[in-house]
Amino acid sequence: MNEPQGRIENGVVRVGGDARQRYYDSRGYGRPLDGNEIALAPVEAAHLLYRGDLRIEDMDFPSFVQGVEDPSFFVRYLVYADLRERGFYLSPAREGWVPDPPAEAQFVVYERGSGPWDDDRLYDLRVAGERESLSLTTLHGALAVVDEESEVTYFEVDRPEIEGSSAGFSKPTEADLLADRAIVWNPPHELFSAAFYGQPLSGREDGDGPIQLSLLEAAYLADRGVLSTDGSILERGREVEGDRFERRLAVYAAFRERGVVPKTGFKFGADFRVYADVESIDDLGHSEYLVRVLPPDCARSPREIALDVRLAHGVRKRMVFALASANDGTEPTWISVGRLTP
Amino acid sequence: MNEPQGRIENGVVRVGGDARQRYYDSRGYGRPLDGNEIALAPVEAAHLLYRGDLRIEDMDFPSFVQGVEDPSFFVRYLVYADLRERGFYLSPAREGWVPDPPAEAQFVVYERGSGPWDDDRLYDLRVAGERESLSLTTLHGALAVVDEESEVTYFEVDRPEIEGSSAGFSKPTEADLLADRAIVWNPPHELFSAAFYGQPLSGREDGDGPIQLSLLEAAYLADRGVLSTDGSILERGREVEGDRFERRLAVYAAFRERGVVPKTGFKFGADFRVYADVESIDDLGHSEYLVRVLPPDCARSPREIALDVRLAHGVRKRMVFALASANDGTEPTWISVGRLTP
Repeated sequence: MNEPQGRIENGVVRVGGDARQRYYDSRGYGRPLDGNEIALAPVEAAHLLYRGDLRIEDMDFPSFVQGVEDPSFFVRYLVYADLRERGFYLSPAREGWVPDPPAEAQFVVYERGSGPWDDDRLYDLRVAGERESLSLTTLHGALAVVDEESEVTYFEVDRPEIEGSSAGFSKPTEADLLADRAIVWNPPHELFSAAFYGQPLSGREDGDGPIQLSLLEAAYLADRGVLSTDGSILERGREVEGDRFERRLAVYAAFRERGVVPKTGFKFGADFRVYADVESIDDLGHSEYLVRVLPPDCARSPREIALDVRLAHGVRKRMVFALASANDGTEPTWISVGRLTP
Repeated sequence: MNEPQGRIENGVVRVGGDARQRYYDSRGYGRPLDGNEIALAPVEAAHLLYRGDLRIEDMDFPSFVQGVEDPSFFVRYLVYADLRERGFYLSPAREGWVPDPPAEAQFVVYERGSGPWDDDRLYDLRVAGERESLSLTTLHGALAVVDEESEVTYFEVDRPEIEGSSAGFSKPTEADLLADRAIVWNPPHELFSAAFYGQPLSGREDGDGPIQLSLLEAAYLADRGVLSTDGSILERGREVEGDRFERRLAVYAAFRERGVVPKTGFKFGADFRVYADVESIDDLGHSEYLVRVLPPDCARSPREIALDVRLAHGVRKRMVFALASANDGTEPTWISVGRLTP
């Protein structure tokens, strides 16, 4: 048994001897102290212990991990070990281990081939167990979720720019409200065929017959003074969808104001699929995003996030969460989440 | 104008003249009355009106459909018209139109080439707007959902038989609880490699090193007297998941009792993926189902259903909803939902 001997002190494991060279310099474990001594965070010590590269008093791996009181420790250990096995060096996001530790992350992961000595960060990594609820606005960089069977799934989180070049529509138009939709019996040609509002009443038509508008489409056009109807669309929307209608209208309007065309995402279980550069209905371009509209303070379970992201990936789109409250001109918060393969 | 003239009476449109031959015998519209007269349900009359094949007093299509008071009428009309355009004949599921009208359906759809005169049913069709909440246990046969943009999406609903031939496991085994998972430090070889319980602590191993069990796996094995631990797994499960843990355990146990191996469906946003015929971990067979566990009285929005079904389809699995309350031996209700292309 030549492995160095560590000792537990104030929640870290201190190791002397050739520890600095052996663990920190050559393999990126721990934080240098005075001389050759280093401090190992519990995840680092547990990983070395599991590999048989360290001894800690009379403890084996089981007794060490069971002795750590923090209930989130083991989940963090699993992520630490998984990334180590994939060939990454990473440090706990705590004072002394990394400069300016990120507040909402548990690890700093370094570029392949880099380590704590050169602070060449690949991303800040948030770690969550699948049973935690995640406030979407607190997500940045990368997210690792440990599921109930201890598999790790990685996501990357971004704040996308929403912009497009699709045509608007401003010809005064009349529609009738019909339960929870509206119908334009005599539509201007451009309504459907250039601006991609609504859908023909009969699938066989080219857009010159009656056009059905969703309540959102109708409410947006009415709000801009383009569409007149026999009743209040906004009221009808609130009746059938409650607050959700306002939120969705806010997001719908934000897309349209940016030249992006939102159409229903129903077939994908989302609120919208969006087209950034519609030339005409014969040239829609690729729909790049699936969009789910949520309240600003919304927390989601990792499983809900996994569902949306997996589906979007399967249809070659990116999942965007649009957080909005009322349709008062406030900019929605756009958060995109994608799969990450470390 | 040679089109026959109908008149509105008690919520139907009566047409005389050659109506029976013209509409019913040759095209499957309406219900025969005495002589050559027929009664048309509002959806049927609206469809003939839209096509210009019928006159009703001084009404055009817009005034007729706006005059029908039932707010769900137009959604039913859209489905009726869609299936007609696809070449199907269908009848409203109402007394007089079909024998023994199904209680939870709006239409009876006939086999291609058949019609109301020979009652050769393809399926009973439930129609819903996307804003309706659907009680899963009331779904049978086929479901058509009209989304906010008036597109129709079809689903077929079934009650699957759950059965498999996977091996069980009954060797007395010890595990330690570690926050919201359990670890078997010295597992019998078969635990993982034959019965597919848990997953190795280090991905590199063959199943002879420590095995992590999910709380569900551990609770099931403990309940059967196979696994002993240092604490109550059931209590821990309830602490971290509440009632949901009981429901999921009931479904987990039902699968295992039938020789089907449930593993986490986290990556697919579901509760489980299941394997019916596991020979060994090297020969798992195809995972045929994705499973979501829900309470017995659960209602889902059509959008939630669309999300699950679309994802399952994309990974070549079938979506199964398992409705269960407590783990008391009561059989879960199994409801599978798939895409239907009429």
